[in-house]
Amino acid sequence: MKTNLAILLLLSLFASGFTMQTKKKIVFFGDSITQQGAGADGYIKKMDSLLTAKNQSANYELIGAGISGNKIYDLYLRMDADVLAKSPDAVVIYIGINDVWHKRTSGTGTDPDRFERFYNAIIKKLKERNIAVYLCTPSVIGEKTDFTNQLDGDLNQYAAMVRNIAKANNCPVIDLRQAFLDHLKTNNPENNDRGVLTTDGVHLNRTGNIFVAQQMYNALSKDFIK
Amino acid sequence: MKTNLAILLLLSLFASGFTMQTKKKIVFFGDSITQQGAGADGYIKKMDSLLTAKNQSANYELIGAGISGNKIYDLYLRMDADVLAKSPDAVVIYIGINDVWHKRTSGTGTDPDRFERFYNAIIKKLKERNIAVYLCTPSVIGEKTDFTNQLDGDLNQYAAMVRNIAKANNCPVIDLRQAFLDHLKTNNPENNDRGVLTTDGVHLNRTGNIFVAQQMYNALSKDFIK
Amino acid sequence: MKTNLAILLLLSLFASGFTMQTKKKIVFFGDSITQQGAGADGYIKKMDSLLTAKNQSANYELIGAGISGNKIYDLYLRMDADVLAKSPDAVVIYIGINDVWHKRTSGTGTDPDRFERFYNAIIKKLKERNIAVYLCTPSVIGEKTDFTNQLDGDLNQYAAMVRNIAKANNCPVIDLRQAFLDHLKTNNPENNDRGVLTTDGVHLNRTGNIFVAQQMYNALSKDFIK
Amino acid sequence: MKTNLAILLLLSLFASGFTMQTKKKIVFFGDSITQQGAGADGYIKKMDSLLTAKNQSANYELIGAGISGNKIYDLYLRMDADVLAKSPDAVVIYIGINDVWHKRTSGTGTDPDRFERFYNAIIKKLKERNIAVYLCTPSVIGEKTDFTNQLDGDLNQYAAMVRNIAKANNCPVIDLRQAFLDHLKTNNPENNDRGVLTTDGVHLNRTGNIFVAQQMYNALSKDFIK
Repeated sequence: MKTNLAILLLLSLFASGFTMQTKKKIVFFGDSITQQGAGADGYIKKMDSLLTAKNQSANYELIGAGISGNKIYDLYLRMDADVLAKSPDAVVIYIGINDVWHKRTSGTGTDPDRFERFYNAIIKKLKERNIAVYLCTPSVIGEKTDFTNQLDGDLNQYAAMVRNIAKANNCPVIDLRQAFLDHLKTNNPENNDRGVLTTDGVHLNRTGNIFVAQQMYNALSKDFIK
Repeated sequence: MKTNLAILLLLSLFASGFTMQTKKKIVFFGDSITQQGAGADGYIKKMDSLLTAKNQSANYELIGAGISGNKIYDLYLRMDADVLAKSPDAVVIYIGINDVWHKRTSGTGTDPDRFERFYNAIIKKLKERNIAVYLCTPSVIGEKTDFTNQLDGDLNQYAAMVRNIAKANNCPVIDLRQAFLDHLKTNNPENNDRGVLTTDGVHLNRTGNIFVAQQMYNALSKDFIK
Repeated sequence: MKTNLAILLLLSLFASGFTMQTKKKIVFFGDSITQQGAGADGYIKKMDSLLTAKNQSANYELIGAGISGNKIYDLYLRMDADVLAKSPDAVVIYIGINDVWHKRTSGTGTDPDRFERFYNAIIKKLKERNIAVYLCTPSVIGEKTDFTNQLDGDLNQYAAMVRNIAKANNCPVIDLRQAFLDHLKTNNPENNDRGVLTTDGVHLNRTGNIFVAQQMYNALSKDFIK
Repeated sequence: MKTNLAILLLLSLFASGFTMQTKKKIVFFGDSITQQGAGADGYIKKMDSLLTAKNQSANYELIGAGISGNKIYDLYLRMDADVLAKSPDAVVIYIGINDVWHKRTSGTGTDPDRFERFYNAIIKKLKERNIAVYLCTPSVIGEKTDFTNQLDGDLNQYAAMVRNIAKANNCPVIDLRQAFLDHLKTNNPENNDRGVLTTDGVHLNRTGNIFVAQQMYNALSKDFIK
């Protein structure tokens, strides 16, 4: 009896251990959009639903690591505590909106050369630990489709930089900006600056969270999610 | 003999008087682009050449009234001295670049509502004197063609405002911004930020001055220049 | 009887007419501080109370002409409709805070040279009509007393400009900035950024409205109010 | 003979080795002021002269680590390569001007909370290695003495932050801002914005470099330099 119990315990421990070993961790690293993304109806929850629907939920743990107002160098400063300490298998970086936006609102945006430099430094640290890195282009500041949102020029430039950084580091890019622009071209006939995928031109509404979750799932299921 | 001479003198005076009366004045009202436009190889000189080529030079006097750094409200403040005092028949307004640009460089750009309000006030004063008013959209701050020039979004918005102001006031618009974008799409295959129509992304080079002169001639010859 | 009544009516009309002729108009021309100043408990109301207390209320009509967000050039644009049309005997100008503040919040503050130019143009128009002009220095953006309010340097510069403009135009200056700084030095021992004379660092609380009314009364009673 | 030579060689090697062990390294970590400070007539050279005059030159190695345009987070990003790799005994940090200045010139200054956070992170890394840390307050952006330099308010705030960070981390502060203000009060009677200690309001002239060297020598000779 005692032996059987011991074996049972051992087996269950082994089983749970096995589960723990195979449950892959994906950290979502970003700003307020990602902070909200970890909440109810957020894009991380929506992605979890997509995994559940595909019967993949048991194999992946999705972890939100978004803090409101963050810019690229904020991510760099807190990546040890908030990302590396969690030993993730993959990190999805969704940053850049505040780096552009804060130039206008408080004079504290990020210079393009610093944006690149800190982004590369983050990727280097992740790659050294064999963590898969996915880069998202910054989505929108204003949903108008004719490039008359005040910061469209600068945001296009930072999106282009993210694509180049991804290429140079051989990382997959989740091109949210292009996906948003394509979606809005069709779904924003009245050229509104908010209300289609966002509540305020930046932060995702329900449709926006589902949209982003789907974009991320599409990208990660190409190689990482199986 | 004496009588004949007197009649001849009288006739010549009358003739010159007649010429003076019919020589129509066109004031070009703007910023540094227009200030340079009045210089050698400037767009105002180039337009004079176009008039000469068409044998229309004797009928029109072209007057530069551009001052470096000017924004819409600067034009309003100095319009009595620099425009109305010259009793022009037509005024071509080419303004808006500094209203956008100075937001970034010195924190002293122009709010959209003020831009509209001062523009309308200028047009009102000109129309009250039966002066023909032509509105130019602000051309470019950076010549890149994929809307990644930092201020493209804001500049697109101000160009759209100028089109609306022109429409609301029943004034012809000289859509320099659209003309520049169309020209650059074809003539800037390497997506450079300067060097095609400008020296520095804003101020016109020789080709740019010729290009602007042609755009203005096209617009004015529709009704004003005959 | 009838004749007596007619004489009485005539006399009363004459009397009221006399009063109307001697009631001097003072326009308060400014931004949101002045817009609020015309409301209940506002500084214009407080100044009216001071006049009443001195039995001078019948001789002066105080008129608020403040609009939220106004900068110096906004005053210039609307001065015909909002000031000259009222045929004032005196105008108290209280402007400059947004000219500095909006540099930071929206990139649309006012360059120093434009501030001077538009201010001088306003004064010229008023003086041409023999209107007495009083200039207020911009009070505060933040109430801290050690010059660590973010915009203190720039605001000090604009206050200095107002003093110079007043001197050059031979106008009395109501030096609110200096009066505020002196008052705060004594009454803000904890170096708070708001709550002594303002609600938010800029807009006047009850104490601030009384304080400003007193400053203005002091200045105007030197020569204008008798 | 041979033995004697060997002993002599051994002794000289030992001597030089001894010297190498005792020569303490001081890294000067900062922006363009420090980059220029390492050049001829720069403040680092001037401090070397002070050490020579006191016969202390042999015991200290002064190393410049300034890069033009640097802000606090730039120091953090490059501190491993540019400071820690040099195994310094002391680090003098002279930063903060661009963190304030770039808000105005390019919209890319540093938020106060980030300034503190990155500054603390740098100090933590240095203290963990038992490196002595000296904090300089940011000197000046404009030399006018009546707090009318445009950015005085903000710069005063960042200087106050540096004093607080120094106190909280138990580090000596070299209060350059206060020293500059005191010096200018006496030596800038015409209230010029440049030319006393700087060439352009920010970068040190010859007098400024000597002045800074003296301030630093005074601070370091209290405990570090003996």
